[in-house]
Amino acid sequence: MSLTRKRENTINFSPGPAALPDEVVREARENVMNYKGLGLGVMELSHRSPEYTALNLQTQDLLRSLLHIPSNYQVLFQQGGGTAQFAAIPLNLTPSEDTTADYFITGMWSQKAAKEGEKFVKVNHVLSKADGGYMTIPEQSQWNLTPGAGFVYYCANETVHGVEFPEPPDVGSVPLVCDASSNFLTRPIDIAKHAVVYAGAQKNVGCAGVTVVIVREDLLGKCRPYTPVVLDYAVTAKAKSVYNTPPVWSVYILNLVLKWIQKHGGVEAMERNRVAKFQSLISVIDQSGGFYRIPVERRFCSHVNIPFRITVAGEANSDLEAKFLSDAAALGLVQLKGHRSVGGIRVCLYNAISCEDVQKLASFMSHFMLQNRN
Amino acid sequence: MSLTRKRENTINFSPGPAALPDEVVREARENVMNYKGLGLGVMELSHRSPEYTALNLQTQDLLRSLLHIPSNYQVLFQQGGGTAQFAAIPLNLTPSEDTTADYFITGMWSQKAAKEGEKFVKVNHVLSKADGGYMTIPEQSQWNLTPGAGFVYYCANETVHGVEFPEPPDVGSVPLVCDASSNFLTRPIDIAKHAVVYAGAQKNVGCAGVTVVIVREDLLGKCRPYTPVVLDYAVTAKAKSVYNTPPVWSVYILNLVLKWIQKHGGVEAMERNRVAKFQSLISVIDQSGGFYRIPVERRFCSHVNIPFRITVAGEANSDLEAKFLSDAAALGLVQLKGHRSVGGIRVCLYNAISCEDVQKLASFMSHFMLQNRN
Repeated sequence: MSLTRKRENTINFSPGPAALPDEVVREARENVMNYKGLGLGVMELSHRSPEYTALNLQTQDLLRSLLHIPSNYQVLFQQGGGTAQFAAIPLNLTPSEDTTADYFITGMWSQKAAKEGEKFVKVNHVLSKADGGYMTIPEQSQWNLTPGAGFVYYCANETVHGVEFPEPPDVGSVPLVCDASSNFLTRPIDIAKHAVVYAGAQKNVGCAGVTVVIVREDLLGKCRPYTPVVLDYAVTAKAKSVYNTPPVWSVYILNLVLKWIQKHGGVEAMERNRVAKFQSLISVIDQSGGFYRIPVERRFCSHVNIPFRITVAGEANSDLEAKFLSDAAALGLVQLKGHRSVGGIRVCLYNAISCEDVQKLASFMSHFMLQNRN
Repeated sequence: MSLTRKRENTINFSPGPAALPDEVVREARENVMNYKGLGLGVMELSHRSPEYTALNLQTQDLLRSLLHIPSNYQVLFQQGGGTAQFAAIPLNLTPSEDTTADYFITGMWSQKAAKEGEKFVKVNHVLSKADGGYMTIPEQSQWNLTPGAGFVYYCANETVHGVEFPEPPDVGSVPLVCDASSNFLTRPIDIAKHAVVYAGAQKNVGCAGVTVVIVREDLLGKCRPYTPVVLDYAVTAKAKSVYNTPPVWSVYILNLVLKWIQKHGGVEAMERNRVAKFQSLISVIDQSGGFYRIPVERRFCSHVNIPFRITVAGEANSDLEAKFLSDAAALGLVQLKGHRSVGGIRVCLYNAISCEDVQKLASFMSHFMLQNRN
């Protein structure tokens, strides 16, 4: 069966690359063939042109303004996604493989970061190994921090396991590094508490191909001699993120999304939406008497990526989950399948998902439960 | 003065990001908001979706078919442009910093590659330093090759200086590495003579954000322990270029351009166009009695990036060059300014530039000469 769906009848809950606001996609469409009346499209714009220079700098300024970034931080654009930053972080922040770096492992992404980190530093695990999956963040008294560590790394929100830090961990004076990819600009973040905050664009602020890196200036210029120049923060900063050809289209989309966020009330409005959207969803789950079950402890339950199981007699039931996905898709509620490593359902409530979108999902979920609960 | 140009009245000679074929940009516009009737746009497609999986593999197959790539080579997509490959090449192909690698320096890009290479290998210059710029490639008897070198590196076509290798250098059994960014798919290339051929997409085959890397399989799996995983060829190959989130949009555009090349007769047709376009341009220059002057020796003069000066009494005249650029722009012939390091004019004849486009430029150049020659 070949299915044709209209955009207006589709709600895309993809974990990333994720939904973009309609306004953004519409404006992008207008500029694919002719940007600002130049006679050529955005993708065909030289990165040394005055138009790209303006776009690039304006995008950095928008981030500064939306996140209230202090003046002693640089805003960089690099390529390679968060996975490139797994290497860039130790390469830029630590002098040698003898340096110890502390990693909070709270899900798949911080685990991957630590694995890559092992190439470059001695990785110390701040938390003892999670038994039976990632469902909580142990309290501070149980943290195993290394005095004088090169840095402390955490993933603000785990896209796969749905574990979110309510606030940045307090690690004293050790440089704190945050992977903010999946909750970037869904809530305020105190940049000044961090050495580095980075985020791939393809979840909350754009399309794949560009990574935002916010780094404190005094940390620049100390990278290891064998750092590929494209990952050298100091070189990227000095060149205002055009040392070599940048991903022009991805920066353009980032620019459009940031303007959209600004127009719609900034990060503060995204924060209000985030809370409202989460409440819509969680109230259905809480009132389901265990039919929908979130494994993560509530205090650390992500507001952005919510994985849950559908249960029968207390056990996750993959047949019913398959039916849920298929019934949802028939209503245009798509990309709800949980990550292959955890199964079940995952709802991603990034910025482009509206309160109305979540209400439609919540309403479907109530209906599905009534029809399918024994 | 604010100027508004129509696309159909504009010919974009940008060195890159460069012009894309109208057909490609039009199709991209159709799919920004809804791809294949999925109800969501290309940028919003999960990289684990069946649709992206098919797109990704089809794109690799198109490259295999268009370039007749032997079966013992892998086709990879990485990020970071050619500049990331400057590091990836020595990291993947050589075991340690004690390895010597040979570099042909024939212009700015191979010079940059060698500079980055110095972080990872002992760089040996195959050619003695060029006096007064890059204008030729010395003959084979003057090459200083290292027996048993880790690899030999060359840039098939220098975008800034306009020096192009007529054919790959014969370096015996040492692994040969080619930066083909600016003449990729403008002519056939014998992949089997190479260990690695790579190209940033934003000149001849797409938009910025993705780099094509074609690598011989027996070279995989030997990278240095401190290679960032995003640059590890073996990991990229094993994951079919979706180890982490790929630049979905850029791969999509690459796919469209490759289909466009296929539809219009393949690399063999691009080759015929390349020769015809170069002849159109060069005949005006040759008949100008020195008014237009190409510094590069004819045999090595790029067919793709042609830098030239406009002279008065035998001397390059930047006032006249400024007038040339301004008169050309008034006719919709844009992005003709030479690179800031060499000045003058540069004409880029990538695949998206048609024979008619070049005839319009040639006609303007004849007219400009008649009006401005003393």
